[in-house]
Amino acid sequence: MADTIKVLLPETEAPTHWYNLNADLPLLGVELPPVLHPGTKQPVGPADLAPLFPEALIAQEVSTERYIEIPEPVQAIYRLWRPTPLFRARRWEKALDTPARIYYKYEGVSPTGSHKPNTAVAQAYYNAQEGVRRLTTETGAGQWGSALSFACQAFGLECKVYMVRVSYEQKPYRRVLMQAWGAVVVPSPSNETEAGRRVLAEHPNSTGSLGIAISEAVEEAASRSDTKYALGSVLNHVLLHQTVIGQEVIRQLERAGADWPDVIVGCVGGGSNFAGFAFPFLAERVRTGRKTRIVAIEPAAAPSLTKGVYTYDFGDTARLTPLVKMYTLGHDFIPAPIHAGGLRYHGMSPQVSALYAAGLIEARSVPQNPVFAAALSFARSEGIVPAPEAGHAVWGAMQEALAAREAGEARTIVFNLCGHGHFDLSAYEAFLSGKLEDFEYPEEAVRKSLEALPQI
Amino acid sequence: MADTIKVLLPETEAPTHWYNLNADLPLLGVELPPVLHPGTKQPVGPADLAPLFPEALIAQEVSTERYIEIPEPVQAIYRLWRPTPLFRARRWEKALDTPARIYYKYEGVSPTGSHKPNTAVAQAYYNAQEGVRRLTTETGAGQWGSALSFACQAFGLECKVYMVRVSYEQKPYRRVLMQAWGAVVVPSPSNETEAGRRVLAEHPNSTGSLGIAISEAVEEAASRSDTKYALGSVLNHVLLHQTVIGQEVIRQLERAGADWPDVIVGCVGGGSNFAGFAFPFLAERVRTGRKTRIVAIEPAAAPSLTKGVYTYDFGDTARLTPLVKMYTLGHDFIPAPIHAGGLRYHGMSPQVSALYAAGLIEARSVPQNPVFAAALSFARSEGIVPAPEAGHAVWGAMQEALAAREAGEARTIVFNLCGHGHFDLSAYEAFLSGKLEDFEYPEEAVRKSLEALPQI
Repeated sequence: MADTIKVLLPETEAPTHWYNLNADLPLLGVELPPVLHPGTKQPVGPADLAPLFPEALIAQEVSTERYIEIPEPVQAIYRLWRPTPLFRARRWEKALDTPARIYYKYEGVSPTGSHKPNTAVAQAYYNAQEGVRRLTTETGAGQWGSALSFACQAFGLECKVYMVRVSYEQKPYRRVLMQAWGAVVVPSPSNETEAGRRVLAEHPNSTGSLGIAISEAVEEAASRSDTKYALGSVLNHVLLHQTVIGQEVIRQLERAGADWPDVIVGCVGGGSNFAGFAFPFLAERVRTGRKTRIVAIEPAAAPSLTKGVYTYDFGDTARLTPLVKMYTLGHDFIPAPIHAGGLRYHGMSPQVSALYAAGLIEARSVPQNPVFAAALSFARSEGIVPAPEAGHAVWGAMQEALAAREAGEARTIVFNLCGHGHFDLSAYEAFLSGKLEDFEYPEEAVRKSLEALPQI
Repeated sequence: MADTIKVLLPETEAPTHWYNLNADLPLLGVELPPVLHPGTKQPVGPADLAPLFPEALIAQEVSTERYIEIPEPVQAIYRLWRPTPLFRARRWEKALDTPARIYYKYEGVSPTGSHKPNTAVAQAYYNAQEGVRRLTTETGAGQWGSALSFACQAFGLECKVYMVRVSYEQKPYRRVLMQAWGAVVVPSPSNETEAGRRVLAEHPNSTGSLGIAISEAVEEAASRSDTKYALGSVLNHVLLHQTVIGQEVIRQLERAGADWPDVIVGCVGGGSNFAGFAFPFLAERVRTGRKTRIVAIEPAAAPSLTKGVYTYDFGDTARLTPLVKMYTLGHDFIPAPIHAGGLRYHGMSPQVSALYAAGLIEARSVPQNPVFAAALSFARSEGIVPAPEAGHAVWGAMQEALAAREAGEARTIVFNLCGHGHFDLSAYEAFLSGKLEDFEYPEEAVRKSLEALPQI
């Protein structure tokens, strides 16, 4: 298969189980600190989470089973686009004049154009199984909201999405996509919740924020017995559902006769695409001893791993969530408006954080202009126009390819292209016309925000 | 493979040749009338086309070889997304409560999201082979322009796209996509050509038209020795390059163990996706005697097959092109501004026209509201949001599925989903909010336009 570009996997070889990193953390020498109740500062129990999540997902959140079976109805929906293709970037390798062999996993073939439906479908399924009729969620630019809209449609659930008002008004296409799949989308802050009304009373023209939208979605779910809440990243069960990505990659590399990767690269915001891609490689390390460098790329505007501190913090701005130990820039920190909206998060998933603290993964940060330059170089060779989030992984892979050139080594590099940029072309336009602002590390804002960390 | 949804084809089984319908037309009892010079009314020769097209493409235009080898560099680019998947629409079948088995070929996985790169890549390759440095073309909504931009990037050609000004201003994302692949995009009418300057002198605020943009692109190509012109549909060689679609479908149906289709459905504008999908089924009819109904769906706003006349007419509004015998609504006819911009053409490819005249294919027309209703029903079951053009094929397949239900027959239906609707969500928004205008058959306008047909 010397000249193969696409490495496909038949449906019959699709993963039938999700891989649960928690089972292997002790074997990797990593400790995952418990999630704490914000009031008592004691570990939260299932009862604390029951108003928001169905039992099956709460069980997955704390499970230590190594493999958890993917229910057949979820697999059936996955088959609409999974297994996703793995590509060998032969043309880009030539363009970069590198001896490296570059592979990329492409999650943009999903109905919503990113990896998000992998967990949205699972979450909608378990909620439907337990008699939940409606799900609420928040969305910024719309990737997660559209994934949950699609998933709810698949299992006959109603879906209510609180969309940050500025995005609701400026990015109507993602909203239309959600509506096309039958979701109700309201601009946040709204008059439909106490949290929303409180903001509007004070700031009638508020353009909203992800923090406010979370508060609204959580409030509605907590106050209605037929409704629960869904989150698109950060939590263990969300990362768990994404592990189909990395499992497929490993099978596809075998099919392609590729060497075991020297390095794998993903972008990180909350951590879900990165985890889904990378965790199965840690399973291989445990099982077979085969190692690979694992590199996370984050935006300079929200560099939680490279510049944050590893401590207990709130997951949201409004301090409604439990306390989790994670790399954080402080829950008050609001990242600059970079186009990679999916990476604009002040914290990092606890699992990814624990791995980083243990030295099992590396991290680098980058401003957005180099990201778009790398993404464009990729698009001109490979055809696919990456989402700005995925562009961070492209940039990271490019650095590795250039390092391999420098070293004169035919290293094997694999990265996760977690989504396409069809809804992000205004960002490319800004880059092409030289009007894209770079946001460097906001040292002063982070310093101030870290002062407000909770005392544990 | 009872439960298979995706039918994949490995690269090793991708078609290595294009199928040339011209070879089989005599065996199908179909005559293809010659293309005439607009001045002499005599058949055009290669020399007449040489200023605009490279020799290889002119040779393909008139070839009667049954199979033409796809050059390896073209196959290498195809491999970035081809073979494209064939899906069994199991969930949509259930939603329609039909005993029919519905399959769809999905061309939306290409870099530009439609079938257009199949010919763009081939045309760019042959031009580069013959030392051409630049290509010009016109584009309306941008599907064809982005395909040619991508293809030129792949073979190191410059690309200049004259984009109808109203689209240039209202649909900036397709323009950005072209620029991302390195094309120069100018709003038409422009000051860069005689044709454009003439229009601007008379109408300084002209919003442009496809007819004007063609004139500008053709004028620039004809007046520069390093530049040629590329067309995205209608011509024989363009349709030829699209036949990878149908060849793949036939191999995929075999792999899936599917019955020979009772009916196949595609949408038609100029005819290229329809031809690429359907012609290989005619090859099977000639070779094996296996028949299938072949149905073309066109918009009620531009119903050339169902309401036009089969006669010699110009391909463009400005009467610059040779005369071709085709189903036409008259070259003066300007279709209403339906969202399926790719189907807004007054004529029909000569090959498709000849087949329709011979009774080998059927045709139906439909206004756009039923198209969007069908497309939404499809999107809610299958995930993929169809382009408005492809929505016509979805509507046609739905009619066949409902007819199968009525008849209580498990018919096999295959349709071509030629592109996704990621750049057409404003159309879905109009439909969802009940604001989408239906354009019925414009009887009076067509009658008037047909009066202006050239006399042969």
